[in-house]
Amino acid sequence: MSSELRVVLFVGGVGGAKMAHGLSRCLPPGSLRIVVNVGDDFRRYGLRICPDSDTVLYTLAGRVDPVNGWGVAGDTTTVLDALTGLGDDTWFRLTDRDLATHMYRTQRMADGATLTQATAELARAMGVDIDILPVTDAPVPTRVITSDYGELDFQEYFVRHRWQPEVKFIRYVGAEDARVTTAVAEAIDWATCIVFAPSNPWLSIGPILAVGDIRERLLGRDVPRVAVTPVIGGKAVKGPAAKLMAEQGLAVSARSVAGFYGALLTDFVDDVRNPEFTCDGMNIIQRDTLMLEPADRERFAGEVLGYIGERIR
Amino acid sequence: MSSELRVVLFVGGVGGAKMAHGLSRCLPPGSLRIVVNVGDDFRRYGLRICPDSDTVLYTLAGRVDPVNGWGVAGDTTTVLDALTGLGDDTWFRLTDRDLATHMYRTQRMADGATLTQATAELARAMGVDIDILPVTDAPVPTRVITSDYGELDFQEYFVRHRWQPEVKFIRYVGAEDARVTTAVAEAIDWATCIVFAPSNPWLSIGPILAVGDIRERLLGRDVPRVAVTPVIGGKAVKGPAAKLMAEQGLAVSARSVAGFYGALLTDFVDDVRNPEFTCDGMNIIQRDTLMLEPADRERFAGEVLGYIGERIR
Repeated sequence: MSSELRVVLFVGGVGGAKMAHGLSRCLPPGSLRIVVNVGDDFRRYGLRICPDSDTVLYTLAGRVDPVNGWGVAGDTTTVLDALTGLGDDTWFRLTDRDLATHMYRTQRMADGATLTQATAELARAMGVDIDILPVTDAPVPTRVITSDYGELDFQEYFVRHRWQPEVKFIRYVGAEDARVTTAVAEAIDWATCIVFAPSNPWLSIGPILAVGDIRERLLGRDVPRVAVTPVIGGKAVKGPAAKLMAEQGLAVSARSVAGFYGALLTDFVDDVRNPEFTCDGMNIIQRDTLMLEPADRERFAGEVLGYIGERIR
Repeated sequence: MSSELRVVLFVGGVGGAKMAHGLSRCLPPGSLRIVVNVGDDFRRYGLRICPDSDTVLYTLAGRVDPVNGWGVAGDTTTVLDALTGLGDDTWFRLTDRDLATHMYRTQRMADGATLTQATAELARAMGVDIDILPVTDAPVPTRVITSDYGELDFQEYFVRHRWQPEVKFIRYVGAEDARVTTAVAEAIDWATCIVFAPSNPWLSIGPILAVGDIRERLLGRDVPRVAVTPVIGGKAVKGPAAKLMAEQGLAVSARSVAGFYGALLTDFVDDVRNPEFTCDGMNIIQRDTLMLEPADRERFAGEVLGYIGERIR
């Protein structure tokens, strides 16, 4: 059964990385490919920084900081401390070994490598044998239009202002003209199921789905297309998802998340703690989606794969 | 007497920094401005790296590595080690605290600061109250045309290939169209003497003198214009100066250095170890120009200032 499972997982950062980790523990080698959001990517200190991709990378490499869920465990701040000493406003905190990742990627891309190639090289260097695929090699920076500060770069909104400003609108700049990479197109065609991690719909999955040709490619696949709720009991498991829903006038609920995906989904994995609901054209199941401990990841991934396995039998 | 001395010193890296340090110890505050070569500047890992400027900065801040004469004393290599672990070809070795300098500058310039402004901020942050002035804010990268490798970026020639390739020609790209900064123009007008440090004529002073409007500005000042020989006893004190002279078919001698400057000089400080020579329009004196120990810098700078003081009395 599980030999037929070829999973493409769409992810943002921490929540997505946890699900990626769980799936990687349940699936045989070569059965999982991960498509990662690049809307968070930005440039600081001249460096090309890809927070979501790196969170997935560090998580799968077993190097991630277990407390934050991002960054390198036990990393030092020698450079950051020196920057602070120079009077720099170090609102984006880059630790020493993490910095090496950004420097490697930036130099390789200056040498002509694509983001996809640089990411693959980093994964290989860190001993990760799962494909981590940026959804596109084109820059598609997410911008957040706020009431108080006007338009902000994503990281200014998310890190500098700790996602506190009220959001009026979100732009995925350049996404409409962007195209998925060849590797992502192949992954979608290869998959026997497509899974959307419990990542933020508007900030992590939204920038992926805004890439010009991706919806058509997904809708063209007659396989289960499954999303997991990031909302449990009227709250987001992590980050600003609930706050964004309220600011859009949406109910903070799994139903709103299902509505976000709409026709892209055939199946929706809701949390057992949520009130049941129905949505046209979607099978909705309830599971314990919380992944607080590493063991939860494998348990939950196993449950999702078990369900999908039944569906594609 | 010394109150009348207002010195502008033109420098490259290590040798120039030593002379800058010596002069800074002999002159009252506000009497020294340093104009620094930017032909060595380059971008690696996305960072704007200015080796000559930083060598002067670290030297005047008392932070320079005393063995190499460049880089930060006692600095760590956490990031570099991580980069090596990722498989990066770390031929240009950036240590942790040095890295912070480049990151600060790169970000400030991305924010719209000029190189001159970023350099001034770094100097202030490091407690250096002497103006360190990039000769121009325009990029004027030095390129080295070699017999074996064709055209190389300066740092590829100098660091990666350890200045071993035979040099056929040197290009100061963009220099003709570049202009000195306002701060440099003001410094030249302000000076009561202009001094060229014992830096490499072709690789350190050459890129400065190639900037479009600088020769005219220097020749327009009726003040002593003094250069110090970097050649002693048929050898360069440091680096490839002697090798470059031989490759150009020049005698490896102070006379060849004086010939390089030509009409720009009124005075030339030769080393006591060299055979005496004459050059039309130049007063040539001999001193012990070697600055092996920190105390030598002050002693030598004092001798040069004493001589200039007599000249401008």
